[in-house]
Amino acid sequence: MARSRLARLRDGLRSKGLDALLVSSLPNIRFLTRFSGSNALLVVRRDRAVFLTDTRYALQSREEVRRLRRIVTQGSLVEAAASHDLLRQCPRVGFEAHHVTFAQYRMLRRLFPRVEFRSTADLVEEVALTKDRDEIAQIERAVKITDRVFSDLLPLLRPGVTEIDISAHITYLHRRYGADRDGFEPIVAGGERGALPHARATTRRFRKGEFVTLDFGCSVGGYHSDLTRTVALGRPSSELRRAYAIVLEAQTGAIAAARAGMAACDLDAVARTSITRAGLGKLFTHSLGHGLGLRLHERPRVSMVNREPLRAGSVITIEPGVYAPGKFGVRIEDVVLLTPAGSRQLSHAPKELIIL
Amino acid sequence: MARSRLARLRDGLRSKGLDALLVSSLPNIRFLTRFSGSNALLVVRRDRAVFLTDTRYALQSREEVRRLRRIVTQGSLVEAAASHDLLRQCPRVGFEAHHVTFAQYRMLRRLFPRVEFRSTADLVEEVALTKDRDEIAQIERAVKITDRVFSDLLPLLRPGVTEIDISAHITYLHRRYGADRDGFEPIVAGGERGALPHARATTRRFRKGEFVTLDFGCSVGGYHSDLTRTVALGRPSSELRRAYAIVLEAQTGAIAAARAGMAACDLDAVARTSITRAGLGKLFTHSLGHGLGLRLHERPRVSMVNREPLRAGSVITIEPGVYAPGKFGVRIEDVVLLTPAGSRQLSHAPKELIIL
Repeated sequence: MARSRLARLRDGLRSKGLDALLVSSLPNIRFLTRFSGSNALLVVRRDRAVFLTDTRYALQSREEVRRLRRIVTQGSLVEAAASHDLLRQCPRVGFEAHHVTFAQYRMLRRLFPRVEFRSTADLVEEVALTKDRDEIAQIERAVKITDRVFSDLLPLLRPGVTEIDISAHITYLHRRYGADRDGFEPIVAGGERGALPHARATTRRFRKGEFVTLDFGCSVGGYHSDLTRTVALGRPSSELRRAYAIVLEAQTGAIAAARAGMAACDLDAVARTSITRAGLGKLFTHSLGHGLGLRLHERPRVSMVNREPLRAGSVITIEPGVYAPGKFGVRIEDVVLLTPAGSRQLSHAPKELIIL
Repeated sequence: MARSRLARLRDGLRSKGLDALLVSSLPNIRFLTRFSGSNALLVVRRDRAVFLTDTRYALQSREEVRRLRRIVTQGSLVEAAASHDLLRQCPRVGFEAHHVTFAQYRMLRRLFPRVEFRSTADLVEEVALTKDRDEIAQIERAVKITDRVFSDLLPLLRPGVTEIDISAHITYLHRRYGADRDGFEPIVAGGERGALPHARATTRRFRKGEFVTLDFGCSVGGYHSDLTRTVALGRPSSELRRAYAIVLEAQTGAIAAARAGMAACDLDAVARTSITRAGLGKLFTHSLGHGLGLRLHERPRVSMVNREPLRAGSVITIEPGVYAPGKFGVRIEDVVLLTPAGSRQLSHAPKELIIL
């Protein structure tokens, strides 16, 4: 598997006229090698690839990194790459310009004075746009855990309970069910706080009749889940019910319309048009969704301005919302896998309005 | 307060011959402005400082960032700095070379063609070495929460319970008691897993008579706590008790010896000599401690090789350990504030051997 990802990356090197690429971004290294530690460098040449890490990860890298030459060192990884002459016969070498710091770049120049370094962007990210079977299975594991956590939360959601109490339970349950950790800090937002798309959980107590928005996910083997549900604590007002129905229709409509080949902005438009026709377009203040994988937010952005065609094998979120400042918010989010024929929804938590 | 930190930073600018410094590292920006969001840039000139962030943080930055000019923009912060001409009459401008990416550096050069950019390292970090009263109070809040969590854990620690169950409780209790979050993933390591200083919690169940090492901390207002205790589940063997006594003596001896003015390596040596004389020197495989503040690990490193004199106002951990591979581990860690006369221990969880 690692070989086929590397082979796809090498197509990119060839098209850019590069003899080698230095990969230093950890999610990108994990994608190419499965290494999950916190310090590594990967030298991808056209003829071979060499993995470098430090002594703390000697054992772990032996287990995780298969079929590649490994160098384990006590000092700087770039210095080890130089002392092992890993860029021999590589006149043009790419580096990840959005990841390598100025200090690291200066060190590269000093250690490899004869190499012409070229800045690159998104070479590995481009390969990672299309998930393979292993990756989809990992995302499904993460999504399944998060679905299960949602169902466990329902009996806990009642007036008087605080946002932070539910948030702490989410973290606890993710780990209990085998996730490595939360993929991001859980959002638990009751009543008027639901109008803040990125609300941090507070000690505010839930009240009867209000909506609670829960947006949470975990990571498993580095891969993420991301789920949002909005539930009602007791019978909500007709204004709330109407808003919920509008978001639900936009969300299910977008999922039904999603397929590889369509422009990302056209998928955003499906949901946006639906909400706008119902009169709440101004309250849908963010993009429809984002790619999901080893990074919580990755390409493709599913936004009004991204004209990129969606790819078969990309995994994205579909998460329209409406936010009435000072009053309430509704957001519904699922994770879907794009296919040539359409999409397959990976998350399965119920989304008809739940009244607790 | 923000002003006095900025005033101290300006001493550094003057000594480096810089007319301004671009601060882009978020912990450094938080230190100088109290801003806690995820996107900001701070332009520190000798005559004034200007804070930039994006529209997501318009409200939050107004609450957090006092007494500084604020610019809130929709696009790139560096482009906004250019369009507001914030480096006017600043021929020599420093940037944080270990933080700015190559792509960002290239953009700086393009947007400010007449500025001579100079790479800098640790200018803000140098100021942050000495904690002021507010910072010490924040660290004490974090430490107090972690102490309380430790005492709540004791009734839960018994044979049959898993490491991951305790780890999840730590996360839950930190949040319940008002922390923003764990400062790092809690380490809970039973029996032979205690020999791995950075063990991740697993589904392994505790057994009678073994040691459990708990290493955890939270963050409050960005500031960290960091506590390690090793407890026994039932009466431990004489080998375990002896190892515990050796580590405890080394740890309390180092705390008693710590004072501003001594070299960091000399403090490391106090604990190391104590453990070596007791015959376990080879099992103490890491440094004695590290600075703690807005970063979990910051200067000063308290290691065998760091000859820097310790400063009054620095907050450090003192955490000797012994690790018997395949058998057991012991580590005891407290947080102390260095003073000219000695040190003040901030954490107060009991550390006489607890037998549960």
